[in-house]
Amino acid sequence: MTRTVRVALEGLERGRRELSRGVSQYLCAVHRLGVGDAFIAFDPEAATECDATLLDADRRAATAELFEPRAAENRGSLAVTLLQGVGKGDKLEDVVRLVTALGARGVCFVSAERSVARPGAERAARLRSVAIEAARQSGRGDIPSIEGPLPFAQALEPWRGPGVTRLCLDPRAATPLFARLDEPCVLLIGPEGGWSAEELADARAAGFESVALGPLTLRTELAAAAALGCFAARRAGSPP
Amino acid sequence: MTRTVRVALEGLERGRRELSRGVSQYLCAVHRLGVGDAFIAFDPEAATECDATLLDADRRAATAELFEPRAAENRGSLAVTLLQGVGKGDKLEDVVRLVTALGARGVCFVSAERSVARPGAERAARLRSVAIEAARQSGRGDIPSIEGPLPFAQALEPWRGPGVTRLCLDPRAATPLFARLDEPCVLLIGPEGGWSAEELADARAAGFESVALGPLTLRTELAAAAALGCFAARRAGSPP
Repeated sequence: MTRTVRVALEGLERGRRELSRGVSQYLCAVHRLGVGDAFIAFDPEAATECDATLLDADRRAATAELFEPRAAENRGSLAVTLLQGVGKGDKLEDVVRLVTALGARGVCFVSAERSVARPGAERAARLRSVAIEAARQSGRGDIPSIEGPLPFAQALEPWRGPGVTRLCLDPRAATPLFARLDEPCVLLIGPEGGWSAEELADARAAGFESVALGPLTLRTELAAAAALGCFAARRAGSPP
Repeated sequence: MTRTVRVALEGLERGRRELSRGVSQYLCAVHRLGVGDAFIAFDPEAATECDATLLDADRRAATAELFEPRAAENRGSLAVTLLQGVGKGDKLEDVVRLVTALGARGVCFVSAERSVARPGAERAARLRSVAIEAARQSGRGDIPSIEGPLPFAQALEPWRGPGVTRLCLDPRAATPLFARLDEPCVLLIGPEGGWSAEELADARAAGFESVALGPLTLRTELAAAAALGCFAARRAGSPP
């Protein structure tokens, strides 16, 4: 079950490549790879990957031979975008991790009346690096789009046209999520404490249908994991 | 969207009830309930609940009037038991939380060759309190069974008979989980690093079928959340 070690590298090109100190340490110290050992390099922006071999196993400045880049084997295959209400604390990172690992197309964080934290744009770089790390761990060859936090109305605006399934998770809904697993889909999940009545009415007016994952109240990250898991499980085994 | 405050109380009986210091503080300090305010008391062992009203809002020794207990409205409705390989760190607590909130019947932790930690029995009380807290938060009126960690063979032993769907999550499986969401079900999920080849062969010999959630490698808690989410979403909206 041991998987080949993966590292993110920008701009893959066939040939000799000097590796950064971070990548060198990851390969040679964390994973104890030596000269001649194989690994996989992937470029999450380009969604490409290539086989690689260590030429020099210096823990601070290793060198590798990169082979011909190819399209990444496992890209995010779900045409599902998550509109996630922003809660307090570290949850943006948790949401980015699960969105990446479950193969969703993207996530847009949504500022809600009831949300506690309203993180600024400076968090974007951090979230992108969390996505790259989650892609590395999960074997995904690209990363999802990450947007926001945007105000509620602005986050919903791009999804008003036809051709996309618009869902809003609500434990009180009569329609099961299971009956609406159609892609492309945009999935609206409330922050801790839920959406306000006004926001729910706006979502309905924008064509979002309320669907339930069950009668219990789920933490936002658990709701996102469970809901995206349904889309992933539906896709598993079917042709890409 | 404000929900009625819930507290766990053992042995619900109609009538006047003096509340413990912890419960008093939770109601009167954390939630700032006052005399005459309503809350719901639930007994997770008996799967019962009742309406209640504060008679005395002392933050250290409150008193409440309990009304007639009834069967809990939302019990764990999924006839799904998770056999979860034990990893390192705090993940047992995370798994207990998600198993409770998604409504699964139970979880049995499984010691794996590759697992890092092998927590002792003394953790059971802690896990039970985590389940009660997750039940309170999610609105569930009972708690799942929590067993283990047991050795691999011993954990699989009770599930050898007919009448139960036996699944083993594996990203390399050809069969999608989606095609096997039948209850009652026992769902085997590997620890960080996966099962050994020998363990996988044993699971197959015990009638476990490998199913995939998708091609990506998921952290164990994310795999559990996504897989149980499929069962929950399938049940939502259908008659209990």
